[in-house]
Amino acid sequence: MKLKTVGIEDIRSPIHVREQSGSRQETVASITLRADLPKNVRSSCLTTFLDILEAYQDDMRVDRVPALLAAVKNELQAESAHITLKFPYFIEKRAPVTGTASLMEYTAQFACGSAGTPDMVVSVWVPSTTLCPCSKEISEAGAHNQRAEINLNVKFRGFIWIEDLIRMAEQGASCEVFSLLKRPDEKHVTEQAYRNPMFVEDVVRKVAGLAMAHPDITWFSVGVESFESIHKHSAYAFVESGSL
Amino acid sequence: MKLKTVGIEDIRSPIHVREQSGSRQETVASITLRADLPKNVRSSCLTTFLDILEAYQDDMRVDRVPALLAAVKNELQAESAHITLKFPYFIEKRAPVTGTASLMEYTAQFACGSAGTPDMVVSVWVPSTTLCPCSKEISEAGAHNQRAEINLNVKFRGFIWIEDLIRMAEQGASCEVFSLLKRPDEKHVTEQAYRNPMFVEDVVRKVAGLAMAHPDITWFSVGVESFESIHKHSAYAFVESGSL
Amino acid sequence: MKLKTVGIEDIRSPIHVREQSGSRQETVASITLRADLPKNVRSSCLTTFLDILEAYQDDMRVDRVPALLAAVKNELQAESAHITLKFPYFIEKRAPVTGTASLMEYTAQFACGSAGTPDMVVSVWVPSTTLCPCSKEISEAGAHNQRAEINLNVKFRGFIWIEDLIRMAEQGASCEVFSLLKRPDEKHVTEQAYRNPMFVEDVVRKVAGLAMAHPDITWFSVGVESFESIHKHSAYAFVESGSL
Amino acid sequence: MKLKTVGIEDIRSPIHVREQSGSRQETVASITLRADLPKNVRSSCLTTFLDILEAYQDDMRVDRVPALLAAVKNELQAESAHITLKFPYFIEKRAPVTGTASLMEYTAQFACGSAGTPDMVVSVWVPSTTLCPCSKEISEAGAHNQRAEINLNVKFRGFIWIEDLIRMAEQGASCEVFSLLKRPDEKHVTEQAYRNPMFVEDVVRKVAGLAMAHPDITWFSVGVESFESIHKHSAYAFVESGSL
Repeated sequence: MKLKTVGIEDIRSPIHVREQSGSRQETVASITLRADLPKNVRSSCLTTFLDILEAYQDDMRVDRVPALLAAVKNELQAESAHITLKFPYFIEKRAPVTGTASLMEYTAQFACGSAGTPDMVVSVWVPSTTLCPCSKEISEAGAHNQRAEINLNVKFRGFIWIEDLIRMAEQGASCEVFSLLKRPDEKHVTEQAYRNPMFVEDVVRKVAGLAMAHPDITWFSVGVESFESIHKHSAYAFVESGSL
Repeated sequence: MKLKTVGIEDIRSPIHVREQSGSRQETVASITLRADLPKNVRSSCLTTFLDILEAYQDDMRVDRVPALLAAVKNELQAESAHITLKFPYFIEKRAPVTGTASLMEYTAQFACGSAGTPDMVVSVWVPSTTLCPCSKEISEAGAHNQRAEINLNVKFRGFIWIEDLIRMAEQGASCEVFSLLKRPDEKHVTEQAYRNPMFVEDVVRKVAGLAMAHPDITWFSVGVESFESIHKHSAYAFVESGSL
Repeated sequence: MKLKTVGIEDIRSPIHVREQSGSRQETVASITLRADLPKNVRSSCLTTFLDILEAYQDDMRVDRVPALLAAVKNELQAESAHITLKFPYFIEKRAPVTGTASLMEYTAQFACGSAGTPDMVVSVWVPSTTLCPCSKEISEAGAHNQRAEINLNVKFRGFIWIEDLIRMAEQGASCEVFSLLKRPDEKHVTEQAYRNPMFVEDVVRKVAGLAMAHPDITWFSVGVESFESIHKHSAYAFVESGSL
Repeated sequence: MKLKTVGIEDIRSPIHVREQSGSRQETVASITLRADLPKNVRSSCLTTFLDILEAYQDDMRVDRVPALLAAVKNELQAESAHITLKFPYFIEKRAPVTGTASLMEYTAQFACGSAGTPDMVVSVWVPSTTLCPCSKEISEAGAHNQRAEINLNVKFRGFIWIEDLIRMAEQGASCEVFSLLKRPDEKHVTEQAYRNPMFVEDVVRKVAGLAMAHPDITWFSVGVESFESIHKHSAYAFVESGSL
């Protein structure tokens, strides 16, 4: 073993995230920070990691991450350094018929290596609805449906908005999910899901198609877990662009 | 404060549970063990709890729990003692049309105080399907449905089977849930849920009615959490017989 | 059952919390909202809850909670309403010797019933260190110690700061916990914990004593879970002022 | 994307595991089952997975896993199939001085691909104690210590016991952890940890050394997370034999 990895886990911090709207969102991230050390280098009690993290904590933003990782590499004589920031992310959505506004919660993550942007993976976890094509086809009325979670992870050139990734994921499902729906909206989402039956493998294929068509995405993977309403277990599907 | 409670948390142990079928099921329980001590009594490093638990661990069964709690009270000069054992519990179910057998997983719990059986609460957590009456009524076709978890807790006289409590809970939902369904079964559960729309409050009312009608149940509470397929949050309802 | 409870669970929202420093902290809360309905009242698809929550979400603060609950009661003809807001809460702490500043994460919760402030419980969960008196006494050198979590819950008259509750909890442990410690600080906390050995029951007794001496606290409970470093399980202790 | 993965998640089942003692242990596994399908093959509602799983559930043992995966490949025309079985695993341990027996809980996992044994990874998660060398060195008395979790993952030729992996992990820590310790045992483990201070990186290095020296282990990785008693976050270290 020429290299070993050391780090800190499970530390939380307030962070700011730039919104596509132009605002900046204040949220709370779970942070993991690691460095790959040559075999003969010894770290001292993790203080260095925390020292550097503290220095950035007053204004923790994605565009300061490369500098933070460079500081880690430098202070620890590390070959590379890596950080992940995972956080709840809120977007105001409009209900599909009445236009009623409500705040929808997603999860997002930046995972960044010290090689900089080419090394960054942005991830979103997006709740949505799946409606089973098999159940619809064989039943006289109705079809089982359920909440599913779509996880889209991408590498990109230039810049990409969390909002764009969430939109891609939501287009892949039988129907997207909202925080607040009035009766005409509930009618609309029920009927849309019923018109649009999808197995988990259909969802990954559709989201993968959208990711493939995006000019700035250079790599992606998509996983979907569907919390089946007629079972206690989940259905799962996954594709990765590397297996193209 | 005349009394203080001390105990151990998060300890796991293999246990045996008697099945209604006559067999005995081997599973793994998460155990909490506590004692209420008079103010002037001091415990020594929790060894007493673990000593007693260890003595019963070779053959951990519900009917040995009162003796275990009596030992705790005696050794620690405690005013009372309390144990909870929470564990996965498996029942072989038959699919509704084809009769295909499969093993279904539930969660069950025994919570027992040192006063003995009158002090025991048996709990089950039962996955099931809820289908929204509102969504069905207003939509041209389909209706949103989802997995829900029904939690039934009872006190009783005499003896009560975990299987009986699970059955009561399953009768309260739009449809029960199975591990393995063939196509004719999937058609059946889809149509049954569609014919049987229920809000969470309808489910608690129906399960409460069954518990109230049971001759041996002396107290109960019912909670239902429905993992809404059109939202990110859950719907919840609860009733307790004490509020009769 | 004259009453039944209905509600929503697991919804998250950005909130603002007033700090003792005069600033306001932006964080993210997990929210539960419930109402106790007379038997004959039927809720419609939870939209009412979400409608009201949405109206307050732009500026969710504790002092707006009573108005929110009044709106729930009014709209649903409920006998009572109840909300809990649980969130990470950050405080800048100074290391004990070098004075190095770092941001420490705690968890806090407001649980409020529609009867208003007398009905409010404020809770904090505070990480800290416990060092075992028994291990210290019998060993030639060293003593096992570990992270513990102190949970303090209070009712009060007037107003109480989250910061005050955290301070009370931290005074009860063998030593308090920090995010960033330099070498002289690490020496200090190691030695302080070693000088100050405490069983979990000693910690609850000390924190309870501080709560009892506070002029504005009208009820409290204290629980401590110690993640024993020499075991896989936790030690636990609990007291409640009601058992005075 | 020539291949896509489909599967089921979060299904639990009783399983039997062979113990090194010659007995067989009954426990409960969380199972994930997946298959890599050529692009043009479509699965039907996951019934095939569940059908096969059900057929093996009466007697779920590791040596039947290859046949189970072969059945999945065959039925689904899959290019490959993969299963993970993760479960609590209990071993009777003797306290170091008094020899008092108690049951200790670990977590173990078999992850197996359809290529058979060369494709199998066996994992263990082992609780243990770490004592900080830095804290010991700079302090007049005492040293902060805490529970840590050692995760050892191996590929092997022939056969390997879970018990052997657990033993390797336990030798790497400042001291191993027990369920039940009498006073002379507590004195012993306290003093042993104090004599044997280790950073997380020392632990991974030591466990890696043991794995490297084992004649049947062909690949391994070791991760250690230490739940620091003076902080709210964890220290982490990791090595993989591939980086040799």
